[in-house]
Amino acid sequence: MAEMAGQQGRLAGRRLAFLATDGVEEVEYTEPRAAAERAGAQVELISIKAGSVQAVQHDLDKSQMYLVDRVVTQADPGSYDALVLPGGVVNPDRLRMNWDAVNFVRTFVEARKTIAAICHGPWTLAEADAVRDRTMTSYPSLRTDLRNAGARWVDEPVCVDGGLVTSRRPADLPVFCTTMVEQIAQTERIAAY
Amino acid sequence: MAEMAGQQGRLAGRRLAFLATDGVEEVEYTEPRAAAERAGAQVELISIKAGSVQAVQHDLDKSQMYLVDRVVTQADPGSYDALVLPGGVVNPDRLRMNWDAVNFVRTFVEARKTIAAICHGPWTLAEADAVRDRTMTSYPSLRTDLRNAGARWVDEPVCVDGGLVTSRRPADLPVFCTTMVEQIAQTERIAAY
Repeated sequence: MAEMAGQQGRLAGRRLAFLATDGVEEVEYTEPRAAAERAGAQVELISIKAGSVQAVQHDLDKSQMYLVDRVVTQADPGSYDALVLPGGVVNPDRLRMNWDAVNFVRTFVEARKTIAAICHGPWTLAEADAVRDRTMTSYPSLRTDLRNAGARWVDEPVCVDGGLVTSRRPADLPVFCTTMVEQIAQTERIAAY
Repeated sequence: MAEMAGQQGRLAGRRLAFLATDGVEEVEYTEPRAAAERAGAQVELISIKAGSVQAVQHDLDKSQMYLVDRVVTQADPGSYDALVLPGGVVNPDRLRMNWDAVNFVRTFVEARKTIAAICHGPWTLAEADAVRDRTMTSYPSLRTDLRNAGARWVDEPVCVDGGLVTSRRPADLPVFCTTMVEQIAQTERIAAY
């Protein structure tokens, strides 16, 4: 809580895109979103479909639905300061097959904006060929896929390489959230839209 | 049905291992198992846990539970003629983190036995480094992971490369099942246990 209190206002005026779809692991969406909003950021849930997305707990137990703020085809990546990729095994498995979603991610990579990805979230980065020569972590099931995609995979609660913040699983959320906020706060704020 | 009738008895005396855990896509387990049993094979569901596994439909909708015949640590890969890897996104995501499961798969690869994998099933083969220089297909979300692991990925209802039979999704099950049975029938039967 001390860290969270210390981050109040750190992201004032920042806009963050959370990209997710059905199968998103609930706490990996809700906790980083809450941390970003507590820090003053404006957050939007971007998805590959309109309406709402089905969150899950432990990959297989359906939880609540969450309203989508904007469909990816209607989202301008240039209007966000950073991108957050929650996990849940089904979520990135669907995102990575959607060209608009992968292209949305690639735009953040090319602009060297902060990207924070947790658990299975990094699969979408692998699809965008965005992990080559990056030091990063993930849920351990992705380790081989990420190494094969050119990443240096490490087993740490949080890993920061340039603007890429990665964590392994829900248990890492406290340090993931504070590190994500700090990394975004340190970058130059984009022109206001 | 003509093909199925023509396969009666084709696998008499053969023993097949189906390796799966929670999150297995139901029809990708039940239909190949039924096809193998119609052809006269003895089939065992091998898993990384005792008891039963939770099957799903369309990755996220829980369906029935299926009894596990044998835990992988108690299974001798030398006693099976072939290995079948059903999909369902959560299933291989869990199998590939289990050393005993990956080692079980690797033993079939090294013995050059028939391996039939559908949908997300091939992830476990990528974990075992068993797709290098193989021509294969899978659910399209795995395409990049399999290419990065050294495979030549093709978009076909069924692909046969040596003893490796792969298909993309439930819609491919009819041709997957008949091809799997034919491939196993053409191999030399292992010594009876």
